[in-house]
Amino acid sequence: MKKNLFSVILLAAGVSSRYWPLHEKYGFGFFGNSLLARQVDTIETLQPEKIVVVVNETNESLVRESLASKQKNIIMVRQQGEGQAAAIVAASAVVEGAAMILNTSDVYEEKLLLGIIQEWEKEQCIIISVKKVTEYFPGGYVALQSDGTVGKIVEKPGSGNEPSNLVRLVAEVVPSLKELAGEYDVHDDSAEGEVALFNKLFKKGVRGISLPASGYWVPIKYPWHVLDVMDVLLETLPPHQGKNVEIRSNVVIEGNVAFGDNVKVYENTKIVGPCYIGDNTIIGNNSIIRHSHIGAGCVTGFNTDITRSYIGDNCWFHSNYIGDSVLEGDVSMGSGTVLANLRLDRGEIVSVVGENRVNTKRTKLGAIIGKNVRIGVNTSIMPGVKIGSNSMVGAGLVVSRDIPDASKKLL
Amino acid sequence: MKKNLFSVILLAAGVSSRYWPLHEKYGFGFFGNSLLARQVDTIETLQPEKIVVVVNETNESLVRESLASKQKNIIMVRQQGEGQAAAIVAASAVVEGAAMILNTSDVYEEKLLLGIIQEWEKEQCIIISVKKVTEYFPGGYVALQSDGTVGKIVEKPGSGNEPSNLVRLVAEVVPSLKELAGEYDVHDDSAEGEVALFNKLFKKGVRGISLPASGYWVPIKYPWHVLDVMDVLLETLPPHQGKNVEIRSNVVIEGNVAFGDNVKVYENTKIVGPCYIGDNTIIGNNSIIRHSHIGAGCVTGFNTDITRSYIGDNCWFHSNYIGDSVLEGDVSMGSGTVLANLRLDRGEIVSVVGENRVNTKRTKLGAIIGKNVRIGVNTSIMPGVKIGSNSMVGAGLVVSRDIPDASKKLL
Amino acid sequence: MKKNLFSVILLAAGVSSRYWPLHEKYGFGFFGNSLLARQVDTIETLQPEKIVVVVNETNESLVRESLASKQKNIIMVRQQGEGQAAAIVAASAVVEGAAMILNTSDVYEEKLLLGIIQEWEKEQCIIISVKKVTEYFPGGYVALQSDGTVGKIVEKPGSGNEPSNLVRLVAEVVPSLKELAGEYDVHDDSAEGEVALFNKLFKKGVRGISLPASGYWVPIKYPWHVLDVMDVLLETLPPHQGKNVEIRSNVVIEGNVAFGDNVKVYENTKIVGPCYIGDNTIIGNNSIIRHSHIGAGCVTGFNTDITRSYIGDNCWFHSNYIGDSVLEGDVSMGSGTVLANLRLDRGEIVSVVGENRVNTKRTKLGAIIGKNVRIGVNTSIMPGVKIGSNSMVGAGLVVSRDIPDASKKLL
Repeated sequence: MKKNLFSVILLAAGVSSRYWPLHEKYGFGFFGNSLLARQVDTIETLQPEKIVVVVNETNESLVRESLASKQKNIIMVRQQGEGQAAAIVAASAVVEGAAMILNTSDVYEEKLLLGIIQEWEKEQCIIISVKKVTEYFPGGYVALQSDGTVGKIVEKPGSGNEPSNLVRLVAEVVPSLKELAGEYDVHDDSAEGEVALFNKLFKKGVRGISLPASGYWVPIKYPWHVLDVMDVLLETLPPHQGKNVEIRSNVVIEGNVAFGDNVKVYENTKIVGPCYIGDNTIIGNNSIIRHSHIGAGCVTGFNTDITRSYIGDNCWFHSNYIGDSVLEGDVSMGSGTVLANLRLDRGEIVSVVGENRVNTKRTKLGAIIGKNVRIGVNTSIMPGVKIGSNSMVGAGLVVSRDIPDASKKLL
Repeated sequence: MKKNLFSVILLAAGVSSRYWPLHEKYGFGFFGNSLLARQVDTIETLQPEKIVVVVNETNESLVRESLASKQKNIIMVRQQGEGQAAAIVAASAVVEGAAMILNTSDVYEEKLLLGIIQEWEKEQCIIISVKKVTEYFPGGYVALQSDGTVGKIVEKPGSGNEPSNLVRLVAEVVPSLKELAGEYDVHDDSAEGEVALFNKLFKKGVRGISLPASGYWVPIKYPWHVLDVMDVLLETLPPHQGKNVEIRSNVVIEGNVAFGDNVKVYENTKIVGPCYIGDNTIIGNNSIIRHSHIGAGCVTGFNTDITRSYIGDNCWFHSNYIGDSVLEGDVSMGSGTVLANLRLDRGEIVSVVGENRVNTKRTKLGAIIGKNVRIGVNTSIMPGVKIGSNSMVGAGLVVSRDIPDASKKLL
Repeated sequence: MKKNLFSVILLAAGVSSRYWPLHEKYGFGFFGNSLLARQVDTIETLQPEKIVVVVNETNESLVRESLASKQKNIIMVRQQGEGQAAAIVAASAVVEGAAMILNTSDVYEEKLLLGIIQEWEKEQCIIISVKKVTEYFPGGYVALQSDGTVGKIVEKPGSGNEPSNLVRLVAEVVPSLKELAGEYDVHDDSAEGEVALFNKLFKKGVRGISLPASGYWVPIKYPWHVLDVMDVLLETLPPHQGKNVEIRSNVVIEGNVAFGDNVKVYENTKIVGPCYIGDNTIIGNNSIIRHSHIGAGCVTGFNTDITRSYIGDNCWFHSNYIGDSVLEGDVSMGSGTVLANLRLDRGEIVSVVGENRVNTKRTKLGAIIGKNVRIGVNTSIMPGVKIGSNSMVGAGLVVSRDIPDASKKLL
């Protein structure tokens, strides 16, 4: 090979109940595109030989939908069995030579990926990108050998047992994907992770080095991580002025605000960037929008305050406060309804995920709301509350517990 | 008779409990005048010989009040007994020749009335104005004879039994009112309607033709019909700028807005016409008023949204949302109180009238509020709820049932 | 003495439970200064020989704090035992000659004090300043002798038994403070008031005259009296524009508004004077502030209405209505929370003070809130309610009773 050819493998994780009430992570829309399609855009700038997305039975159709605008550029393969190692095996059937392995549900900065590729081009060995941590994080830690190369990866060693302060993020390059896949033991029914494959290679003496990531990397595990993704994407949002944008009198726009086509902004409203306003959305009078993503076809109504929030498509508001919240789409709220984003004691907000109480590590977090939800007037949703899709929530309520999908909560 | 002389008979229906919590329909104020006085204005453009208003013991004083500005131009007669036939008999004592018969509580467009008169002048027979319907409506249907003339009027035949698709509206001309009145049988104690009188004439071979109405006709039966009346009246509202109108800085006025004397509109407010703003009313800062009638002496306060609503005189608001609502007058609402106008399921709004649940056929309908009502702060009134006069409603409530007159609802 | 030398004695009353939930009256901040420091400023314009503040064990440190900026100009003495007579005795140890006696917790207009001094310079006798009343007030009444001089002061005679219509306010001059103090009987354990001392002198024939006060005098007894003090102080507030004041576009300022340093006023907001806005305070967008005192370091947020209210330092608001209220400082309120200021029946507002229901004589009164209080979203605080310091009040509540200090009221 004259040029260093490589492919990119995107591992499409299965449906995660931790992400409820939101749906498939990679399908989430940002700036009029799915997160996965954005991911592919970023990857294409690296000029890989191939882009391979590994799906499974459950998520194949969702992935196809998320990639609607991109399908001709990518190869989709279906894995047999569960686990990321099985995914690597599936991808190896269509890939010769080197491969970069990424997660579909993590958001990587272009320069981070470029740095990994450049390191691989220089070193021609396995590149494990890592992040330095200052306190224990339940991930995979790199154990270094005396010569500085990677000896093994230790999954969730427990606090105090970390072999280093370097936590692996899922962004590797392997010189030969087939070699990595060859370590997969089909007789092992433990749904072996790809860490085991890497460790087998390292044990055999295959050289690997760890590379501290330079650039952002935002994994989406819990639904509030959408806000973290939004933060990094808004920072890099290019200015944009769509067609037929109508800005009425006495509107103040500060910072970078990207407007889709046919957006209208009514009188006496202030928009503080970075913000994205999707196609055909109407921002009502006497409102304030700050540091937020607002999808297409929304109407924010009179006197609404949307701050540091992700709003999907087709949402309707009217005299609401929406702070630090995630609304997947097709959500409407009656006048006076508030998504509170701060505890009275200013403490970190805890969210119930399945059976567990998870500390979000955020002191500001509003509500997380699925698709097609109607909320009445003057209702108060407490910080960190999650509301399932296709639900109705009545007027004048104080909601301090999660509401399941397809609920009708009127009292 | 050289010229075609005719009189107009206005039938003042009795007090209707279906109209609760609002009071007499014809007394309702629009643009600083009662509905009945407006009616008389319209009729005067037809240049009738006489205008006769038939009242009864119960409503005489209310009718006189509603006609305060008009009393010298009209003849008021009191009927003996109940029913519209008795009313016609009473009117016939003072009317010679032809008469047009109208309801006081229906609102007719001038051109509709003119069309009827012209048809009568041409045909010189009974003219029954009708509306074509596409689905069953519980009114009086015209049965036509083979020559196209009216054979009879069939009251509420039941769905499937309609003799035609032509429903009678109350707007007739008879060549001789005395002839019609002559059919009245004083010995019949069934409180015979005027339909029976017409049918007796048709049976005798008196010629009548039906005339599809050209122009609007809005009957007020239920209180939310005030909004229908408002809609048609706002459309024809002439532009008006009263004396001493004060419009502060950065006010946006779109469309046709009629201002009474001494109106003040404070800063950063938008008014979207058609709207009427009565004398001495103050529209507060940072508000929006759309497609509404606001009476005299109101103060809408800071940050209020009034949309598609009828507001009577002397109402006080403060950071409220009032959508698709009717407030008779002297109503005040505390900060944050909302008159919700949309069901969570977007369905048609049902209102309880007496013992019955009546489908208003509206998907947007707020509250109907009588006179002299005080509502506290942060209260939510559900769509279609009616609140009786002289009532107090506390703070922070969700009101989903009607509140009787003179109530004190605090919990 | 060539010139008429006199000292001013300030009686620092003990902690009063009637003032709860607010703390020491004289420590209350107005325009960046404590009420007591302001008092001293006023007194200094009279050029007294000495200013003596009499404290006791309980309040000494609070008084020192309130006078932080003034301490070198004044003499502080600690009284032994309770009662105002004991305070006079303590002051007399450091004062020769004439003295004016004032309360630290009353607010006197400069011209009122000047008038008393001038009367004393002319008459060279005891000057008792009084107010004419038209209905019974439970204070001290002056009984005049036939020559017009004061015979005695009668404390709370009961309605109908008043010896005159002249009620004493605490603002006297005595030619010799030592003489007055000399009447104090240390063996009397009744914690004798200073009225008894005056009466002993009058009984001996010492001449005293009463002087109707010319100028305002506002005693603070109950916490809502802070609003009365604010009213008089705002009227005399000099215009002031601090350093680095930033007024954004489309802000309307009417009347006299004094701005501290680094104040920011955001877009589409209206401020109607008289108002004071303290250092580093941010007035948010689309808001209205009327006739109010707002302390330093506050953020009023988007869409807030503050009307006729006293706000201390470091308060945070967001889409609130605050009417006729007193917030001592460090108070935050969630979006949609309202301090209601009007009863539904428009009656006078009653406040529970200790075991008693006290008619505030106000038809407009909001809440009285101590220090360091957090209130959630969409909560409604009823007129006249008091909330103790260090309390948390949850979301969506209707609070109609007082909340003690350090409470956590969530339901």
